[in-house]
Amino acid sequence: MPGRRKSPAAAAIDERRFHDWLSRTLPAGRTGLLPLGDDAAAIRPPPGTVAVLSIDSLVEGTHFRRNSPPERIGAAAAAVSLSDLAAKGAEPTALLLAIVVPVGTPQAWAEAVARGAERMAEQFGMALVGGDTKPGPVRTVVSSVVGWARARALAPRSGARPGDLLATTGTVGRGGAAAARLLRTQRPDRAALVEMLDIRPRVREGLALARYAHAMLDTSDGVAEATRLLSQASHVRAEVDWDRLPLAPALRLGSLSLSERRRRAFYGGDYELLLALPPQRLRAAERVVEGIGGMLTVIGRVQRGHGAWLVMRGGRARPMPASGWQPFARTTRRRT
Amino acid sequence: MPGRRKSPAAAAIDERRFHDWLSRTLPAGRTGLLPLGDDAAAIRPPPGTVAVLSIDSLVEGTHFRRNSPPERIGAAAAAVSLSDLAAKGAEPTALLLAIVVPVGTPQAWAEAVARGAERMAEQFGMALVGGDTKPGPVRTVVSSVVGWARARALAPRSGARPGDLLATTGTVGRGGAAAARLLRTQRPDRAALVEMLDIRPRVREGLALARYAHAMLDTSDGVAEATRLLSQASHVRAEVDWDRLPLAPALRLGSLSLSERRRRAFYGGDYELLLALPPQRLRAAERVVEGIGGMLTVIGRVQRGHGAWLVMRGGRARPMPASGWQPFARTTRRRT
Repeated sequence: MPGRRKSPAAAAIDERRFHDWLSRTLPAGRTGLLPLGDDAAAIRPPPGTVAVLSIDSLVEGTHFRRNSPPERIGAAAAAVSLSDLAAKGAEPTALLLAIVVPVGTPQAWAEAVARGAERMAEQFGMALVGGDTKPGPVRTVVSSVVGWARARALAPRSGARPGDLLATTGTVGRGGAAAARLLRTQRPDRAALVEMLDIRPRVREGLALARYAHAMLDTSDGVAEATRLLSQASHVRAEVDWDRLPLAPALRLGSLSLSERRRRAFYGGDYELLLALPPQRLRAAERVVEGIGGMLTVIGRVQRGHGAWLVMRGGRARPMPASGWQPFARTTRRRT
Repeated sequence: MPGRRKSPAAAAIDERRFHDWLSRTLPAGRTGLLPLGDDAAAIRPPPGTVAVLSIDSLVEGTHFRRNSPPERIGAAAAAVSLSDLAAKGAEPTALLLAIVVPVGTPQAWAEAVARGAERMAEQFGMALVGGDTKPGPVRTVVSSVVGWARARALAPRSGARPGDLLATTGTVGRGGAAAARLLRTQRPDRAALVEMLDIRPRVREGLALARYAHAMLDTSDGVAEATRLLSQASHVRAEVDWDRLPLAPALRLGSLSLSERRRRAFYGGDYELLLALPPQRLRAAERVVEGIGGMLTVIGRVQRGHGAWLVMRGGRARPMPASGWQPFARTTRRRT
């Protein structure tokens, strides 16, 4: 198939031409047992592993704008799915993309999305092995991923036990700070459009931490929401100490009030990992994360009981504030 | 998680409530190693198999209408992906759904989509193991599937060899006949809306035939397009005899002219399997397909050369007509 037809990137998209471009351009042969563009992709599982699967969507108007840089849209689409694999300690392997674009969209747009996704993917050893392009009125990019993990290392959300510590990778509130900036402007500039798509999946941390965690999940809707989900799935009380949260630099500005800081800390998706682990494994977990240049901070604890709680200075516990991220609410915009 | 919150199906959709409904309702535990609703799903590969992966999208306005029955949309979403697995002789296992709906859509709509997909899936031993719901202006349903196959049974599109026979399962033109009916009306009735989503993936046929085929693919864009793709990928000449095509009953009406019959035969997606196989394997392939109540018809042959050709009565070969299905063309509607 390669090389037979020119690919005028400025021309309107055509499914066949786009697939020809994909086959020529992307190094799917690395992983795939079938040529890119066949009915399906095929990959060989490493011995002793289970397949870990996830799917996510980014939609124009909700997660990106018409003029958001397409490479960044593709990178973000791959990143949100990589973050799900990270949360289960899976080795990323294969990415499939479904791209919906209006008739007449330049092929260059879809090519840039695919290239951005492929670049993000390959940073973590994952290859784009398949895709689908369909006409539709609204640009939409759906990523579906497959990774491999040891079954016994999978840390379900439901695995937290009383006595566990709660810890997070990275910082808290990077997503919320970006969302706050975006909400302040009607016409976001390129920097704001890029920032809302800037997701750094903690794949290496997830691979390193899975074996130490009883439960792990990503903070794709913020640390407050992740704590709530963990407490609900594990039927435990989860407490987070406000003073221990490793706030993102943008939230440490002296000009921000405590309540504003708190609002932003919990507002947006950080795509860090929240985990529950037994205290005796903490040192080892810290060591492996430091070994890969990451950060791990204990932020709270798991107890008998139920609900997610925020413990303020002085020890007063209050119900964890809801995420600012209200999916399907009419009044907020989701970052991703 | 289950049982804590009521699920008023008439209420507007909410991501969390929808996921709670999924966890309560769907029997993902059958296949999954993680509870439904975790960051990712996990499934165990059967020994000695490779993972076969595909993704497909159905978009409102392109593949279905606002008032198409949602169970049928879900069933069709699962079916188009099942058809891809069928084409690679893979045993279907896991389905992930990404559903995009406008804010305010009744939850019942998404529930019906998921239920329709699950029912179609379970006919073929596949379970819905994960999902994603996002707000967006246009209803979109993306299905991503995983199946398992023996690596040596995978029949790539590129595997056809001179001397092979070309054969198809089922009939030719069912999709084109449905599309023709749809194009005749401005306001399709329920029967027409259902018919355009009525896809019967040939999973059992694919599993039975994969080991006999040098090349196999589905006729999701019609038999003409599939023949063209096979000849292109395999660098061979593919000839189809018009008189041997097992036309769908709707195309055998005496009132249709030959040219109209031909137009409809090649217009739409049939979701049958087209395969290239050596003549000495034909009897065995016919037997296994008959054994499962299916149909296999030899329709042509593979030769040295290139291009897809339609051989009319008397032996005159003409270039295979293009599919009526022009993805991204402004003037045609795609059926799916």
